[in-house]
Amino acid sequence: MRDPKYNVTAFIIPSEDAHQSEYVAECDERRGFISGFTGSAGLAVVSMDTAALFTDGRYFLQASQQLDSNWTLMKSGLPDIPTWQDYLVKNLPPGSRIGIDPLVFTATDAVKLESELAKVGSSLVPVPNLVDMVWDHQQPHLHNPRPRRPARPLMTLTTATTGRTHLDKIQQLRKDLELHGVTGCVVSGLDEIAWLFNMRGSDVHCNPVFFAYTIVTQDRVSLYLQEEAISEEVRVHLGPTVDIKAYETIFDDLRAQSGQLHAKKEKWLLGSRTNLAMAVALGKGNTVEVRSPVIDSKAIKNETELHGIRQCHLRDAAAVINYFAWLEDQLLNKKAILDEADGAQRLQEFRTEQKGYVGLSFDTISSTGPSGAIIHYKPEKPTASQIHADQVYLCDSGGQYRDGTTDITRTVHFTTPSQYQKRCFTRVLQGHIAIDSIIFPEGTTGYLLDILSRQALWSDGLDFRHGTGHGVGAFLNVHEGPQGCGARPAYNEIPLKPGMTLTNEPGYYEDGEFGIRIENVLLVRPVETRHRFGGKQYLGFEHVTFVPIQTRMMDRELLSKKEIEWINRYHAECLEKVTSFLEEGSLGLKWLQREAQPI
Amino acid sequence: MRDPKYNVTAFIIPSEDAHQSEYVAECDERRGFISGFTGSAGLAVVSMDTAALFTDGRYFLQASQQLDSNWTLMKSGLPDIPTWQDYLVKNLPPGSRIGIDPLVFTATDAVKLESELAKVGSSLVPVPNLVDMVWDHQQPHLHNPRPRRPARPLMTLTTATTGRTHLDKIQQLRKDLELHGVTGCVVSGLDEIAWLFNMRGSDVHCNPVFFAYTIVTQDRVSLYLQEEAISEEVRVHLGPTVDIKAYETIFDDLRAQSGQLHAKKEKWLLGSRTNLAMAVALGKGNTVEVRSPVIDSKAIKNETELHGIRQCHLRDAAAVINYFAWLEDQLLNKKAILDEADGAQRLQEFRTEQKGYVGLSFDTISSTGPSGAIIHYKPEKPTASQIHADQVYLCDSGGQYRDGTTDITRTVHFTTPSQYQKRCFTRVLQGHIAIDSIIFPEGTTGYLLDILSRQALWSDGLDFRHGTGHGVGAFLNVHEGPQGCGARPAYNEIPLKPGMTLTNEPGYYEDGEFGIRIENVLLVRPVETRHRFGGKQYLGFEHVTFVPIQTRMMDRELLSKKEIEWINRYHAECLEKVTSFLEEGSLGLKWLQREAQPI
Repeated sequence: MRDPKYNVTAFIIPSEDAHQSEYVAECDERRGFISGFTGSAGLAVVSMDTAALFTDGRYFLQASQQLDSNWTLMKSGLPDIPTWQDYLVKNLPPGSRIGIDPLVFTATDAVKLESELAKVGSSLVPVPNLVDMVWDHQQPHLHNPRPRRPARPLMTLTTATTGRTHLDKIQQLRKDLELHGVTGCVVSGLDEIAWLFNMRGSDVHCNPVFFAYTIVTQDRVSLYLQEEAISEEVRVHLGPTVDIKAYETIFDDLRAQSGQLHAKKEKWLLGSRTNLAMAVALGKGNTVEVRSPVIDSKAIKNETELHGIRQCHLRDAAAVINYFAWLEDQLLNKKAILDEADGAQRLQEFRTEQKGYVGLSFDTISSTGPSGAIIHYKPEKPTASQIHADQVYLCDSGGQYRDGTTDITRTVHFTTPSQYQKRCFTRVLQGHIAIDSIIFPEGTTGYLLDILSRQALWSDGLDFRHGTGHGVGAFLNVHEGPQGCGARPAYNEIPLKPGMTLTNEPGYYEDGEFGIRIENVLLVRPVETRHRFGGKQYLGFEHVTFVPIQTRMMDRELLSKKEIEWINRYHAECLEKVTSFLEEGSLGLKWLQREAQPI
Repeated sequence: MRDPKYNVTAFIIPSEDAHQSEYVAECDERRGFISGFTGSAGLAVVSMDTAALFTDGRYFLQASQQLDSNWTLMKSGLPDIPTWQDYLVKNLPPGSRIGIDPLVFTATDAVKLESELAKVGSSLVPVPNLVDMVWDHQQPHLHNPRPRRPARPLMTLTTATTGRTHLDKIQQLRKDLELHGVTGCVVSGLDEIAWLFNMRGSDVHCNPVFFAYTIVTQDRVSLYLQEEAISEEVRVHLGPTVDIKAYETIFDDLRAQSGQLHAKKEKWLLGSRTNLAMAVALGKGNTVEVRSPVIDSKAIKNETELHGIRQCHLRDAAAVINYFAWLEDQLLNKKAILDEADGAQRLQEFRTEQKGYVGLSFDTISSTGPSGAIIHYKPEKPTASQIHADQVYLCDSGGQYRDGTTDITRTVHFTTPSQYQKRCFTRVLQGHIAIDSIIFPEGTTGYLLDILSRQALWSDGLDFRHGTGHGVGAFLNVHEGPQGCGARPAYNEIPLKPGMTLTNEPGYYEDGEFGIRIENVLLVRPVETRHRFGGKQYLGFEHVTFVPIQTRMMDRELLSKKEIEWINRYHAECLEKVTSFLEEGSLGLKWLQREAQPI
């Protein structure tokens, strides 16, 4: 912001990197660097005299604690709080020149925003990233210097895990390109590239991806990798038909392509998450911007992937059960003093013992009492709270395994929960059961199902400020689209299809008191119904998470007969499926046997 | 179509009149005249060699029976069936000149359609109504001649019924115009005008409206009426501040206004249902096209209107109860031979006995067995079927009363329903109860609630092809917006608000066999919840329809404890509220007492 040569009056700092990643490498944490707010979602707008940080309900508490007095917290979704787009239009002076870094903005978003800004005479101005300028020249004694972009070794996967070769996936992509009437495409989503080439990396914390771009045409495939990451194993895996090129050179190749496309009147597909800089390099009029077909293909898990997902969830359940058994024993019997970070650490150790474990799928949310109300809480020494046996304890965690990705939340009380806590927990559980049990015709979207997880809470005037669920990758990102269950209009564009994954995670959060969330991973599966009106296939969910839901937290009076049957059936499944993954006589097995008792 | 001078290759015939009415006067039934299909919803496209009729799931059966071999029935909403807009773009030759009558098309629709057509080089061409040309010159021996536009006497309402004077409503409208930044507006919806001026008419069958337009500015109100309809009572009611003008002269006044608006850089609001001819008359750039603020004001019933709605529903319930009791007695005891039209006729007589009765709110759907699967069936002599005591009988009917409008459906079996019929009925009932019982935070739309009425049906692979519910006028049209509960995206723009009305009418239809529907009218009301998360007000429904739902049709095994409690509570309410409206010792009272027994 110190450099007046760009003549901008404001600069937008989104959370995303050049690949529109939700979770980014440290070197790309520009919004965190400039604002101090470290949540996964948020956007900052810095002007000459204001600094505004927009984030959603999951992060209101965390952001209000992390932002200093320079910042105004904009609680997105609350009445009277403008979207950040509206803020740019209405709160900045008309005629503003608003700077953006075209690497971290999509062309789609930029076009939409420009037309809104034009109404008040304001405009978007592509400039080098002003935050990087500050960060790269930061005095080391003031802040950590900006880290280098990671380029860690790559892992190759066989079809025993993926179910399909990368060449087969590329062939499908080529057919999709034909359907779109384009002759090539640029794929820049890191998880899309990892899926397409059956490779994994570890450049981004908890996300098994690596920095790359790819261009696929009907006769060529170019994969742009950081040179330090390329190994002989990678060359052999990719085979002779994939050109391996240097990561940064894609922009030159796109610029070189621009004239040819124009001359031949051909177009390339740019996924709607591809950055503005790529769209500019390829040239106006040469691109079709739609959701990348790779995203849609990746979302439908094949039978090999589904098998892996089911298997890793059983081992993951054993780890989580061992952890809850250990934690209860420590608190009640050993009278140990443990904080939330100690808990997260111990849970990670239990996961590490499991076959195929690669790492966490996200930072463990280990939260006691009030911490639980911070929806994406991350306990860190020395500020983590001591886990109290007489508080509600919420633990949301997941692992990356070579055969799948897990994401599970359980909420427990180690002694005697209050009647109010039990009521809230039971309302959340009723929402969870309603989602788990629904049968719906093909064509139904997660947007439409969302109400089912809230209905019981609403009857008490309660609600929660996040979606009901998100897709989960197969040994990939824990948040994966395009499907989801929640109020985002985009979710209403995506019918749920067999082979898709979805988390089921309603919650309730009482600021300063406690948090409750119950989360399983679901698979969308065809179901047999008595009838098939209009010839439609009906679909339902198969849950793959098998850790008991604490019956002590339930208010039996609120539960229907069907709900009680669901709970008892679920616990019988936990017992049947996870027992063999626990050691004979272990604390974990005893805990499972006790917790899975029918009510 | 015979006149080549307009040089169009196709002509679009929508159902609506110049006021975008859903139900139209006979002289405006152009689509019915040209196609023979008499359902309330549908659109015809006639080109030189094709004739296509688009209608929705309610009318598939009826249309297939009424259309002759000249016509192709396009079943809107089924996979692979284009919308009529897509059909114009894709099925007509590129470069087509497509004729429309600007009086029966909205400006909003025309603009949207033009931009789609432009992609294939086709265009919309405003022409005089080609159907009218055919109809007006029809040989009398071939068809009925086109009737004259009705101009029946007007009825004025006092604030004892409406709760507000028309001057008060006009003041509110003026404030709304200020908020929209416009200096005037044109209102052309017949029910909007009837509501705004506290007047009613009978120009359109079953809809207590009259042909009129109105212009409201900050200092003038002009009401354009057909001269035959104007009486001294109307002049006195309207008072000196309302200019009464001749119906047809509004177009001249709009054209005269055009230049002034342009000169003063002012705009007028045109409701998005106003016709294209008015937008053209007022001049491009001089209008703001949004949903008319009158529609939004009218949708929120005041306490006087709510009182009237509750009251008229009790009298209406008495009429319906008397009818069902009479019908059962006729079929079972008197062994009478009655057809569906006889039933509808007798029901109308029972309604006529009720205080304040004005007429039907729509043609009675009295349907036995297979007729019940024709969702908007209208029995007519001599084709009406005999009502069989051993078939499912569905009756959907409603009345116009001076204090409100009713709409109720009950489905009964006079002897022994099959197990399958009971199961279907019970699934529909479970959907009805789920909608009736839901509590939801302010801001929730009917779009989001729709799934609740289908969930139980879906569990058996069943569904129905219409929305769950629509708004109902207060002594006005039985279908009233903007709110509604169903899959129409527009319903997701309208949060339900206290004072709104909504029908709750899930169904199930088995072609060639039977139809089931259970319909009550609901009022949106604030409810007290234990908590109010985020400070939001929670809302729920109050049902105002009180006719027993046949317990003989219920499969008790499928019902939850809560659902059984709902049924028993509802029947206790019917007994408590309607008994005093039935004669001591009457068949009706005995029927009510028997049917309201707890299960």
